[in-house]
Amino acid sequence: MEIITKPETETLFSNGINRIPVSFIREILKVTADPEMISFAGGLPNPALFPVEEIKNATIEILQKEGGNILQYAETEGFYPLREYIASRYQKRFNLEISPEEILITNGSQQALDLIGKVFLNPGDRVLLEKPSYLGAIQSFSFYQPEFLTIPMENDGPDMEKLNESLSLNCPKFFYCIPNFQNPSGITYSDSKRKRISETVIKNNLLLVEDDPYGEINFSGENLPPLKSQVGNRGILLGTFSKIVAPGLRLGWVVAEKSIIRQLVRAKQASDLHSNNLSQRVIYQYLLQHDLEDHLNKLRFNYEAQCTWMLSAIKKYFPKQISYTEPKGGMFIWGKLPKGYSAMDLANETIKEKVVFVPGNTFFVDGDGENTFRLNFSNTDKATIEKGIKIMGAILDRFLEGD
Amino acid sequence: MEIITKPETETLFSNGINRIPVSFIREILKVTADPEMISFAGGLPNPALFPVEEIKNATIEILQKEGGNILQYAETEGFYPLREYIASRYQKRFNLEISPEEILITNGSQQALDLIGKVFLNPGDRVLLEKPSYLGAIQSFSFYQPEFLTIPMENDGPDMEKLNESLSLNCPKFFYCIPNFQNPSGITYSDSKRKRISETVIKNNLLLVEDDPYGEINFSGENLPPLKSQVGNRGILLGTFSKIVAPGLRLGWVVAEKSIIRQLVRAKQASDLHSNNLSQRVIYQYLLQHDLEDHLNKLRFNYEAQCTWMLSAIKKYFPKQISYTEPKGGMFIWGKLPKGYSAMDLANETIKEKVVFVPGNTFFVDGDGENTFRLNFSNTDKATIEKGIKIMGAILDRFLEGD
Repeated sequence: MEIITKPETETLFSNGINRIPVSFIREILKVTADPEMISFAGGLPNPALFPVEEIKNATIEILQKEGGNILQYAETEGFYPLREYIASRYQKRFNLEISPEEILITNGSQQALDLIGKVFLNPGDRVLLEKPSYLGAIQSFSFYQPEFLTIPMENDGPDMEKLNESLSLNCPKFFYCIPNFQNPSGITYSDSKRKRISETVIKNNLLLVEDDPYGEINFSGENLPPLKSQVGNRGILLGTFSKIVAPGLRLGWVVAEKSIIRQLVRAKQASDLHSNNLSQRVIYQYLLQHDLEDHLNKLRFNYEAQCTWMLSAIKKYFPKQISYTEPKGGMFIWGKLPKGYSAMDLANETIKEKVVFVPGNTFFVDGDGENTFRLNFSNTDKATIEKGIKIMGAILDRFLEGD
Repeated sequence: MEIITKPETETLFSNGINRIPVSFIREILKVTADPEMISFAGGLPNPALFPVEEIKNATIEILQKEGGNILQYAETEGFYPLREYIASRYQKRFNLEISPEEILITNGSQQALDLIGKVFLNPGDRVLLEKPSYLGAIQSFSFYQPEFLTIPMENDGPDMEKLNESLSLNCPKFFYCIPNFQNPSGITYSDSKRKRISETVIKNNLLLVEDDPYGEINFSGENLPPLKSQVGNRGILLGTFSKIVAPGLRLGWVVAEKSIIRQLVRAKQASDLHSNNLSQRVIYQYLLQHDLEDHLNKLRFNYEAQCTWMLSAIKKYFPKQISYTEPKGGMFIWGKLPKGYSAMDLANETIKEKVVFVPGNTFFVDGDGENTFRLNFSNTDKATIEKGIKIMGAILDRFLEGD
């Protein structure tokens, strides 16, 4: 029995599950288990920068201090002092008043995206996305069968004319955006765009789902204020420890006003009861005893160096027809082949020579972006970056031949 | 702004989210944060029995050995050697051949229930439940808006006549059951019922979702073979480390044939990418170095003692009109007030005197079970059991007065 069919249903599986696009990135993570493969795919942070010793010591201390209680079932909302810590950090960084009751701890940001879909979306509801947008969000939302609308992006954020036009024609449930070092495009919203979007959100009584995994990986160290500080209760803000401490702990959070948090908690209770208690207690212990700013400075310094190495290699080895971004933060460089070329075809060539990256069309819901691609620089050392980009450059020379 | 309303939608929130029943148990867990409250609610294992030292040592060892890699993103399917361990245990206990590829690691069994809803259920699909059934499953499935059908339970399992009658009239997507020490009723299926149900499942080409959190907490130590060994690919079997090691690690699993696992993986990818990597590596390290059987024997010995203390106290203090089960495993005693009495009213009385338990109607989808209640014995010591049951007994004497 491969597939069981039921008399009254066309297929065994739900309508929603068939709507989730397969992740090229997750599939590629399997390919990259090959130790010889040079991977610029994935969005993996650099494991050499994880605070392994500190996490180990925090685990020992907290288990010694608290014993079995931290291995017990716990509250759906998350560990209260960890929520207090997150709230106080928004206060410190942005003078943003958030109560711990407005924070829910999730299994990474990915779960926050899923819970938002669960709480807000009925089939056919409209969701506004940046074009391109984050694949993980597209996957999470897709299950709930919304209609996606997309807003083209300019260098400083969404095309406001198109945004206002779309809002006048449609009534989306929410606008999902990544204002800082967007994945995949690397775009960061300008101050003036932030202001205009906030005004639009308020005027249209729109919900804003603001995903901010990369805001703290700003090479300059400058704080980029969330749109939530301007849109108040209309803003749902997502954060994560995945990029700033370690993703294997699966700890993210949602900030939203209490009536929304109540529904997210209800959804989370039905989804998995609560987030990992050991991880929550360990990370809180780690944060108590270490200044996160020191760690972030180290991350920024290293990621900026990795980014610079990749940009230098690109300048040296890529043919001139390739355009690309020069990011000031985050983890990605976004490139474009000349029109008419397919980055998927390119990936098929580079994989043969053991280099892998993500073709950009995976970040578009409308089939566009065939000539775009995303390179990750955070999980590779200098020599490997040089080697991989050199291989890609040679393949690109052949690939674009005659252009 | 308490609730934002959109012109085109009646409410801001999804249809599914409004279908999830609120958990009396999770709400009660908040009440029981009061240290003076004696709780027979919750389904909490005894934290004094968690292998705290062993978990601590396993964490130290694995972080020393593997460094940052175990804090990195990981595969959606789960850590392969942990899946091998689980497969080999089914082989050892039941001679059941399962490949690691037929196992997906989840954030506790609760996530497995949610993913099953996500993968199989469209609104209006029928789901067959035992009556009563596990609240967490009712919550998970409810989001997906199925129609619930229920099968009355006899002392040795489902009423077969009613089961066959229901199957001849309806075409449920699956039958969800807990064959060992069911939560809440404590019922364990007899061998002959297992056989008859398996035949029915095969004959009707039905999917069987078999949840087995308590099978290993059999006081006698005897292994109770899963129905999956009889129904083959039609069986989806759920297991968890929550009751046999520690729930705070949030590690459960699903066993299913590969085409179903593929869809569950797709759903999990969209839901939270993957389970906690640190927890998976720590528990695997713990299992490598310790014989789980020794730990299970300790659990069985202690839970049997706790159960016996509670039964003795009930015999001593409860009025004769109260009927109750005498479990041979699991974590719960299931009681009944005389017809016409409400266990919810009783709970309101006992909470005033700082004793709490779960009124049984929360486990029924059809409003029945008003006179039933569930007592948990696994998370309370002898003196507290004696004290709490004595208080309940005195309240029951007044409560049933004149009956």
